[in-house]
Amino acid sequence: MNKLDYIVRSLGRTTHKKYEHYVVSRIWHLLNDLDIKFVTQQYVKRENGERALTDMYFPQFGLHIEVDEGFHKNQISEDKAREADIISVTGHEFLRVDVTSTIEEINAQIDEIVKYMREKKPHLSDFKPWNFDLEQNPKTYIERGYMRVNDDVAFEKSVDAVNCFGYAYKGFQRAGVKHPIENDTTIWFPKLYENEGWKNSISNDDEVIISKSKDAQKAIEVIDNTLKSSRNKRIIFARVISPLGDVMYRFMGLYKLDVNSSTYETGLVWRRIAQEVETYKPKK
Amino acid sequence: MNKLDYIVRSLGRTTHKKYEHYVVSRIWHLLNDLDIKFVTQQYVKRENGERALTDMYFPQFGLHIEVDEGFHKNQISEDKAREADIISVTGHEFLRVDVTSTIEEINAQIDEIVKYMREKKPHLSDFKPWNFDLEQNPKTYIERGYMRVNDDVAFEKSVDAVNCFGYAYKGFQRAGVKHPIENDTTIWFPKLYENEGWKNSISNDDEVIISKSKDAQKAIEVIDNTLKSSRNKRIIFARVISPLGDVMYRFMGLYKLDVNSSTYETGLVWRRIAQEVETYKPKK
Repeated sequence: MNKLDYIVRSLGRTTHKKYEHYVVSRIWHLLNDLDIKFVTQQYVKRENGERALTDMYFPQFGLHIEVDEGFHKNQISEDKAREADIISVTGHEFLRVDVTSTIEEINAQIDEIVKYMREKKPHLSDFKPWNFDLEQNPKTYIERGYMRVNDDVAFEKSVDAVNCFGYAYKGFQRAGVKHPIENDTTIWFPKLYENEGWKNSISNDDEVIISKSKDAQKAIEVIDNTLKSSRNKRIIFARVISPLGDVMYRFMGLYKLDVNSSTYETGLVWRRIAQEVETYKPKK
Repeated sequence: MNKLDYIVRSLGRTTHKKYEHYVVSRIWHLLNDLDIKFVTQQYVKRENGERALTDMYFPQFGLHIEVDEGFHKNQISEDKAREADIISVTGHEFLRVDVTSTIEEINAQIDEIVKYMREKKPHLSDFKPWNFDLEQNPKTYIERGYMRVNDDVAFEKSVDAVNCFGYAYKGFQRAGVKHPIENDTTIWFPKLYENEGWKNSISNDDEVIISKSKDAQKAIEVIDNTLKSSRNKRIIFARVISPLGDVMYRFMGLYKLDVNSSTYETGLVWRRIAQEVETYKPKK
């Protein structure tokens, strides 16, 4: 996928909302700035744990646009959202477009949003122009020396994630791998929701992950082995479904095993200890 | 339907062309002029009789936009097009957008089109701002005193067509009705393609319409009755399917029976004698 394809696919999505497409494409075309990244139909997790779908999300701005059809309930059941790419929205801004009015009024609201974003852009202290290829390229993060949750890192391939930490793999299919440099750390690609083999979950604030095999025997083995291992930290990339329907691996941060809370009953409890991790050049 | 709905439905249509939607919505949003009417996926009839689908049509400009995917053959079989709203394109202009390039190059081509149209608009001698409600309102044509093929007249309801000529019907369902003022004229709403009951056709230049019942007995009766009637002219509104999928009645002009060409074998032959007809206030 390239930037053009991404944009065309994102703008071309059809939904149940009659005017969503009009608003989203109009904002993007009038903004008319290829340096600004956007995501359509982004799942968000509010602080109270509610999950919702915003119609347009600008990660560089931490700004969400919601098309407000009045009668429409925008809440999505947790069930439906569990495989989706769900981002936390602490500190994010929400703007609504009321589409229960005339085309002139809708257009005026969109003009306001576009004007607001254009004026805000030069004042964003850590604005980096959207570079589609670079954000999927491990080199980007290796050269910078670190990866942060706030960078909105989500790889299309897990191999690109592991290659940010000292590997030079051509392909990679596993759910986890030892960190090649940091001896206490594993790089892990879990599904953070209940799935066929695992009863996994993540807290609303993304700080706590709980994981337990559904197979009673295996659950005990995994818990025993993990508790006695010296690799008690995990760099976690959650396996999610992107708004465009593709599998993605979203960087969640560095988590450490909470030995006291982890029990056979609960499963393994991982607590986030850092939202930033070091990246490494491939080992020679 | 109102203007907002029309625009949203027209822009929101999905097709087999990957970039069509992007180009069409970008042109419209950047043009940003509610006075300019557009039609998406307009069938056109070229002078050689070929039928094609253009991706965007601006009737006030006589301008068609075609999204050029390179490999894509844009010709549509006659069969598929026969119920569609098919307009003749004599004197129309065609601009192509080559989408086999980068997003920057595609955007630059669209900028050129938008600039061209903005510059051209003040020089269009008979430009009238797009008024969605008025163009569907018989009063518009009655007050002006005439209706012209070039005005791109297409009613959603046939009652609005007959009410342009002296009637004040609330509802109307028939395929034709006597002109209430002009004694030699009928107002007719034929399907101009072969259908269940009729073998009808129209020439590539819209000048000749041939009509014949498929029922041998009825065909003779209709031909006999029409040939001896003094109502030998017809104001014709072709029953077509609009680009949005709705039935519409498109004004084709005034036709006169060609007595010499009409035979039992051929059917009735109607030749266009005027592209403009008089309109009338409701008879008291």
